[in-house]
Amino acid sequence: MFFTQTSRDGRCQARTGRIETKKGGIDTPVFMPVGTAGTVKALTPRQLDEAGAQIILANTYHLFLRPGTDVIKPFGSLHRFMAWDKPILTDSGGFQVFSLRANARVDDRGVRFKSHLDGSSFFLTPEAVVDVQNILDSDIQMVLDHFAPYPASRAQDEKAMRLTSHWAMRAREHFIKTNQHNFQFAIIQGGLHADLREKSLQELQAMDFDGFAIGGLSVGESRREFQQALQPLAPLLSAGKPRYLMGSGTPEDILFAVENGVDMFDCVLPSRNARNGTLFTSRGRVRIKNEKYRFADQPLDGACSCYTCLHFSRAYLRHLFQAREILASILNTIHNIHFYLDFMTKIRYAIHSNKFIEFKENFLALYKGD
Amino acid sequence: MFFTQTSRDGRCQARTGRIETKKGGIDTPVFMPVGTAGTVKALTPRQLDEAGAQIILANTYHLFLRPGTDVIKPFGSLHRFMAWDKPILTDSGGFQVFSLRANARVDDRGVRFKSHLDGSSFFLTPEAVVDVQNILDSDIQMVLDHFAPYPASRAQDEKAMRLTSHWAMRAREHFIKTNQHNFQFAIIQGGLHADLREKSLQELQAMDFDGFAIGGLSVGESRREFQQALQPLAPLLSAGKPRYLMGSGTPEDILFAVENGVDMFDCVLPSRNARNGTLFTSRGRVRIKNEKYRFADQPLDGACSCYTCLHFSRAYLRHLFQAREILASILNTIHNIHFYLDFMTKIRYAIHSNKFIEFKENFLALYKGD
Repeated sequence: MFFTQTSRDGRCQARTGRIETKKGGIDTPVFMPVGTAGTVKALTPRQLDEAGAQIILANTYHLFLRPGTDVIKPFGSLHRFMAWDKPILTDSGGFQVFSLRANARVDDRGVRFKSHLDGSSFFLTPEAVVDVQNILDSDIQMVLDHFAPYPASRAQDEKAMRLTSHWAMRAREHFIKTNQHNFQFAIIQGGLHADLREKSLQELQAMDFDGFAIGGLSVGESRREFQQALQPLAPLLSAGKPRYLMGSGTPEDILFAVENGVDMFDCVLPSRNARNGTLFTSRGRVRIKNEKYRFADQPLDGACSCYTCLHFSRAYLRHLFQAREILASILNTIHNIHFYLDFMTKIRYAIHSNKFIEFKENFLALYKGD
Repeated sequence: MFFTQTSRDGRCQARTGRIETKKGGIDTPVFMPVGTAGTVKALTPRQLDEAGAQIILANTYHLFLRPGTDVIKPFGSLHRFMAWDKPILTDSGGFQVFSLRANARVDDRGVRFKSHLDGSSFFLTPEAVVDVQNILDSDIQMVLDHFAPYPASRAQDEKAMRLTSHWAMRAREHFIKTNQHNFQFAIIQGGLHADLREKSLQELQAMDFDGFAIGGLSVGESRREFQQALQPLAPLLSAGKPRYLMGSGTPEDILFAVENGVDMFDCVLPSRNARNGTLFTSRGRVRIKNEKYRFADQPLDGACSCYTCLHFSRAYLRHLFQAREILASILNTIHNIHFYLDFMTKIRYAIHSNKFIEFKENFLALYKGD
């Protein structure tokens, strides 16, 4: 079995589960640190492992452009290239092509785009994206999808959703022919329209993917719109397969999505914020450059057991940040990634104990910040 | 005993020794990684410890300006502030004041300069520099010195040397009154003039410092000038005290200086070059961005046992460098610092075995580079 549900909270949709891949198991709900270019920025694989990461996400689009599949292919896998021996999920590049101003032009066959690095032109089909991910040997592949940038008209959302279904069918066929040892997820689109989302889901569920992702959220819509799109959708996803909410990731968003049955998350927030000096703690966000931390001889988060919190004061972290030292990015990222992974461990424990709602309320009551 | 000579190579001036401080022992010849702002750039203290560092150097000038002694003082020591519990040597700021275009103006009493950070004005005396280093609790303090930028007239070199002696006397008196548990080194100046250097040495040796440093070299002079200044001077330094060559640090320079009796080194070269993608290996320097490493599935240095060489290929390191990933700086610095510290371990072993000259010749025969 690829996925097994291991417990369910009686008072909401929250559940725990276990995903098995050839590279190891993954306990859900899980947060996947983002390793865009074959590195979770500022962390060694060992630090990532010590933080408790069971799986990371890498970006097919970025790796396709640099270093290129010709460089990674001789290594046999992205895992070996980047020295990360646990599971890797790769997105398809669909989101990057349309969000990085890559001058994308879409037709039924695929997408033509220009590299954001040097302007060179590429054409990718759903099948080619599977081939690239086969070379990366991603444990979980995402299909090439299409979405209309927010805000979009209903017609744009519908068109993108239909193309996503069409491409998913081709990607699934190609994957089944070419890959026997990994897994592939489809991506539900449809913007903020409940009926389009439901139709997208139905079409994709007919194709027997290994899991389903919700795409096209956290792209600029309000929290209320986000929640209204997610809440009715999540419970419709197959209970026997992992449910993945792509790219969303404030602690509040994760709590909301878990409560509604989502199993998997990725987001650049903990790592990007770390580099910008915004740190997640059990008491809320801390802006480390704040003058009030100048003399602060206490750890970032007294409740945290990461390397950063066990060894360094807020005053030292503030100094490193003000001096633009690389160690600021390193120690901040160690903490933020540890915070997120520890947060997920606590969520799993709470669900297992049938106390997810209490956990959520207690967490949010403390989580206030600067 | 602060310093004990533990062996001597019969065929040159090279020697091994042991320095004891309250924070631990140091085997010499030793290389001290540079931690300018209270961090060896891109490394955690744990990574520094794993690389085998027994002591690091920190910059009084930089720490005085940022975060400032008011921030560090409540921590009791720089060690605790930066979470490094082994010895720290701090330079005096003399070199920085004159090399960072800090608009320094010198008189007998001390030096007035403007911060390179915000232009604010400071006045430091030899006594004040001791006070700052007392707050840092540096295990080894350097006295405030003065030097004339290369190339200088003999008159300038002589004037700087005399001022250095005068300041050293005041710094020594102040140190003895205020500090009973750390150590203090004097700095020999005199430019490229053997007689001025000798006079500087004689004046400073009369003051009973715990060790002696050679300053004002590696400031732009040719290798021949460097060697001609160093060779006659090193053997004149007290055999019973550590001899420290400040700021010099190519492997070739270190071999030359060790052969002539020098015990201690610091240099930004391994860490700065790491960030610039220039890596030290047993076969010479490697410029990792070189196209020929694009597909190179071998470690940076097959003879190296650092984390970087045990886990990553040249192709991956090249990719990280080209993508300007923070992990490039991290992995490159881990390697270069490990290379330098391992190099010093091999030097100590060779001296102990009475084979320093063979070691040097074998090393240089292999050390060719790209």
